[in-house]
Amino acid sequence: MSLDDVATAAHTTRATIYLRYPSKAALAAAAIVHARSTSVLPPATGDLRQDLVAQLRHFQESMAAPYSLPIIGAALAEEHTAPELLAALREHVVASRRQMLRSLLQQAQSRDELVPLVDIDLAVAQLVGSYYAFSIAGDLIPPNWSERIVDQVLTGIVSDAFEHQER
Amino acid sequence: MSLDDVATAAHTTRATIYLRYPSKAALAAAAIVHARSTSVLPPATGDLRQDLVAQLRHFQESMAAPYSLPIIGAALAEEHTAPELLAALREHVVASRRQMLRSLLQQAQSRDELVPLVDIDLAVAQLVGSYYAFSIAGDLIPPNWSERIVDQVLTGIVSDAFEHQER
Repeated sequence: MSLDDVATAAHTTRATIYLRYPSKAALAAAAIVHARSTSVLPPATGDLRQDLVAQLRHFQESMAAPYSLPIIGAALAEEHTAPELLAALREHVVASRRQMLRSLLQQAQSRDELVPLVDIDLAVAQLVGSYYAFSIAGDLIPPNWSERIVDQVLTGIVSDAFEHQER
Repeated sequence: MSLDDVATAAHTTRATIYLRYPSKAALAAAAIVHARSTSVLPPATGDLRQDLVAQLRHFQESMAAPYSLPIIGAALAEEHTAPELLAALREHVVASRRQMLRSLLQQAQSRDELVPLVDIDLAVAQLVGSYYAFSIAGDLIPPNWSERIVDQVLTGIVSDAFEHQER
């Protein structure tokens, strides 16, 4: 993503952009905050599976925007040189989504729907992280990704027979 | 990561580096290929859990190197301007690890250890992706991450009682 692309898309010039945003990182951080303010997380219904799928569908839509992945990439690449970009991404995008997913899982835990030793932060990382892994690998996101990842995170992949034999 | 950092670390000058690597992306791609050639994936033993943990420990060690995450970030950020970097990362690092994880899961599948509807590519994405999700969120990787993610991916998080009641 070059500043020229941004200038063209905004029908303005590089000079005008520089006037308002002293660095590319400041511009990207502003874009992140703006994108977040126009996007509302879906409300919860109390059905864990359905609520997780709705959140991940919303996540997938926001990631499908053309510059989402390059902006995350730039934030990671510039962590040491322009930390405000990664900070803005974490504060305005990542934190609220993770908090929502964590809260859905905690509510299910309080309804006794989860195994006693569940690691909720790890489950959130499995749900969201699988999308990052496909993107970094260059794979298309599978059809019905949100439903499939929720089901597989909830129920696991080892067959019952083998699991009981093993333990 | 600046080119000056690289030059200092390599006891050379920016000019010398530019002579050999025409772009920062070409330099980073060469670093990726070199890192890969010095790192051998652990061999498989036939015990799914143990083999997955060994692969993920190896992955975690390679990601803990100071510039691993910034290099992945730069590759994603420059996908349109310097695609050779992301291509090198995928070809020399990501593909071989995913293939190894996939193969461990396929072997377990052929031993009837997995549920009939398992999505193996998705399971690989859960395992590796959870690390990316913690990194992007800025969380420390949890202690014993490799063991904990393998157990949670294999057995799921929904309690048996609730799962059977639901279906």
